[in-house]
Amino acid sequence: MTDVSPILSTADDNLTSSLERLFELVRIPSISTDPAYKAECRKAAEWLVRTLSALGFTASVRDTAGHPMVVAHHDAANEDAPHVLFYGHYDVQPVDPLDLWENDPFEPAVKDIGAGRQVITGRGTADDKGQLMTFVEACRAYKAVNGGLPVRVTILFEGEEESGSPSLKPFLEANAEELKADYALVCDTGMWDRDTPAIAAALRGLVGEEIVITAADRDLHSGLFGGAAANPIHILTDILSGLHDETGRVTLDGFYDGVEETPANIKAAWETLGRTAETFLGEVGLSVPSGEKGRSVLEQTWARPTAEVNGIIGGYTGDGFKTVIAAKASAKVSFRLVGEQNPAAIRENFRAYVRSKIPADCSVEFHEHGASPAIQLSYDSPVLTKAKNALSEEWPKPAVVIGMGGSIPIVGDFQKMLGMDSLLVGFGLTDDRIHSPNEKYDLQSFHKGIRSWIRILDALAAK
Amino acid sequence: MTDVSPILSTADDNLTSSLERLFELVRIPSISTDPAYKAECRKAAEWLVRTLSALGFTASVRDTAGHPMVVAHHDAANEDAPHVLFYGHYDVQPVDPLDLWENDPFEPAVKDIGAGRQVITGRGTADDKGQLMTFVEACRAYKAVNGGLPVRVTILFEGEEESGSPSLKPFLEANAEELKADYALVCDTGMWDRDTPAIAAALRGLVGEEIVITAADRDLHSGLFGGAAANPIHILTDILSGLHDETGRVTLDGFYDGVEETPANIKAAWETLGRTAETFLGEVGLSVPSGEKGRSVLEQTWARPTAEVNGIIGGYTGDGFKTVIAAKASAKVSFRLVGEQNPAAIRENFRAYVRSKIPADCSVEFHEHGASPAIQLSYDSPVLTKAKNALSEEWPKPAVVIGMGGSIPIVGDFQKMLGMDSLLVGFGLTDDRIHSPNEKYDLQSFHKGIRSWIRILDALAAK
Repeated sequence: MTDVSPILSTADDNLTSSLERLFELVRIPSISTDPAYKAECRKAAEWLVRTLSALGFTASVRDTAGHPMVVAHHDAANEDAPHVLFYGHYDVQPVDPLDLWENDPFEPAVKDIGAGRQVITGRGTADDKGQLMTFVEACRAYKAVNGGLPVRVTILFEGEEESGSPSLKPFLEANAEELKADYALVCDTGMWDRDTPAIAAALRGLVGEEIVITAADRDLHSGLFGGAAANPIHILTDILSGLHDETGRVTLDGFYDGVEETPANIKAAWETLGRTAETFLGEVGLSVPSGEKGRSVLEQTWARPTAEVNGIIGGYTGDGFKTVIAAKASAKVSFRLVGEQNPAAIRENFRAYVRSKIPADCSVEFHEHGASPAIQLSYDSPVLTKAKNALSEEWPKPAVVIGMGGSIPIVGDFQKMLGMDSLLVGFGLTDDRIHSPNEKYDLQSFHKGIRSWIRILDALAAK
Repeated sequence: MTDVSPILSTADDNLTSSLERLFELVRIPSISTDPAYKAECRKAAEWLVRTLSALGFTASVRDTAGHPMVVAHHDAANEDAPHVLFYGHYDVQPVDPLDLWENDPFEPAVKDIGAGRQVITGRGTADDKGQLMTFVEACRAYKAVNGGLPVRVTILFEGEEESGSPSLKPFLEANAEELKADYALVCDTGMWDRDTPAIAAALRGLVGEEIVITAADRDLHSGLFGGAAANPIHILTDILSGLHDETGRVTLDGFYDGVEETPANIKAAWETLGRTAETFLGEVGLSVPSGEKGRSVLEQTWARPTAEVNGIIGGYTGDGFKTVIAAKASAKVSFRLVGEQNPAAIRENFRAYVRSKIPADCSVEFHEHGASPAIQLSYDSPVLTKAKNALSEEWPKPAVVIGMGGSIPIVGDFQKMLGMDSLLVGFGLTDDRIHSPNEKYDLQSFHKGIRSWIRILDALAAK
């Protein structure tokens, strides 16, 4: 291990220009789910290639069938240093409803929110542009002081993370040799709290599915046909309502196959973290845990599978009232998976359940929106231990190893396709409002995030 | 009774100009539910006043808190002739989804649809502009031949029928003396089939209600919060799914209070009409009756109450997928009432049921969208018998007395506020697609509708 303090000081001194670079990236509205922003996604990729090339990386925009990838390489100062693949994504979520944003989502700013906290506002500041820039700026500081990097670094930035990553697997397959490293560093996760850094070792998987139910061949007048004609909204609400029983468990056949109870020692460690329903849900105006009964909120969100309706629409939804029986109704449903749950089996069982509820004169269409199994990484690998110690030096409290409710399918893909485990370190906070209006990233997350990567890079290079 | 054949011939001769006048009215997009069309509603009222004034009526646009009324008066040739109040509405339903229309909804045209049928296309052609114009054009032909009208006629055209008629009751109350007649003629109903005219004697009532459920104070990421945070779409689908039991009955407390079984002789008469689930639902691409089990489709739509979800929305409904737990979800629900069901009690019981399903940390708002009790008129009054005979002379088959699934609240208001029964005669057909894209009115409905009113006016004047 080297003395990293001059590198940390350089990062401190350069914070303003680091922020300016982040702002440039946030200003590009790279919304991957909406085809209208296709050119903006490419613009973000090109900006990253320019930035990395200027830093001494061999960087390029790599076309895919969807939004492009960014790939960049940089050698280590020492030839037998480890090789890491750093992953982040430059695409962001849609911003609707726009009227709920207090600031323009694509005009970032630093805002004082009281209690000594400053935050960077804007779409993508936390998910994931701010996070990936902590690593880029850490490399910059390292090079400015040492002239090189302590480990060999390959960077992969994706532009389709928020839209199911359709191009990722083909890209990993076609470029496996180029991308394979000793392990991946994935920066798309959060801290435990403002003082406590976290390394995620368990991530829930995801199955996304859209169903469209069609009844009559046109919208009907509910006076003329009501009481006789099938109403697709009724069929849909019956289906969705039937997905959970009264204890909050998902009712699909075989849904809990492959779900293990969390080991008692892990549950006990989580209980010491002091997250209660009141504190966790209280932050978003709620107080009553609504999922599986008899489970803590940490278990509910880290170690238990779920079924959630993410969107529903049917019939007349404008101002006023229209006494119509709709021809169609649709819903977007996602399942969060844990342990060894099989995404393909869950999709099939869901479809079979839905089909069993469709009357003979109605029909249903299914649209697939991604699938990834859950991930369980080692709680005590050497890499994890090094990173844990490095983080513990930077932050007020020691780092903790946690689970994650969200899905990062890339971790499974790295494991399966490149035979490479991941180290999941990120600096997001629960109140970052990712995927919601008024997304922000704490200035401290950005600043100490840069410093954290400097320490981790140094620690990973050590024998 | 006079010889009406010269009047009928005049109506036949003038059909082209009658159609031109209807087209002028249809071209005015008088959508009452959408505030953007306020000026167009007034334009339609003014057009009607000009048209009736030119016909010799004393006609005026009458302001209300909402869209204006049209009131017009014309004396009878004979002083002791009866006095009738003719009612119709000039407002129309919204036209979305616009891309499903084959013709511009506000550029009417006559279209050959094969099998010798010609139809008038456009929003409001059947509901209710085409219908009210049958009466106006009947008066025109009558006056052209006889110089006067055989009964004293007051006309009331409303502009808020499709948006719950908020101004109607205050207007009837304030103008009771002016509007009260011996009975009302209401032209907003349909034929039994293309050959068989119908007089409606039973109409279902309506309660319209919108519910908005709020859970968290913002949209949440379903990975971070899924399994712990309340999902308002789940709450809503549970509520809506619970509205019916497995036999199709509505589960609300006291919902069937005041619902009588239809008398056996009426049911028997309806059975001879030969409407089956296959024929009725087959016209709209369905085949399986979906309402209360063990009831014919005629009973289901004329004599049984219903609960229907007319619209639902929540979460992300755009292209692609967004793993969000929505802050809000909402639905528009309507109840069709029969017999003596009490609209206020049903609204209250529905609200109590919904409230009982809202978790302690979530909330619900209710928005009222109109209420009217069901109507049951006499099956054999002298006026009904006269009209029935007049209609039977005009059409290939004798007129039938039927029930109606839709609500015409005005009939209850006339009964309650002006002590006046109504005669419900109209010329719509089941395939008119009212409230849907591609609304049409058969040219035969318009033409023979005019002729029917000439015969009815004449019959009503007879001692």
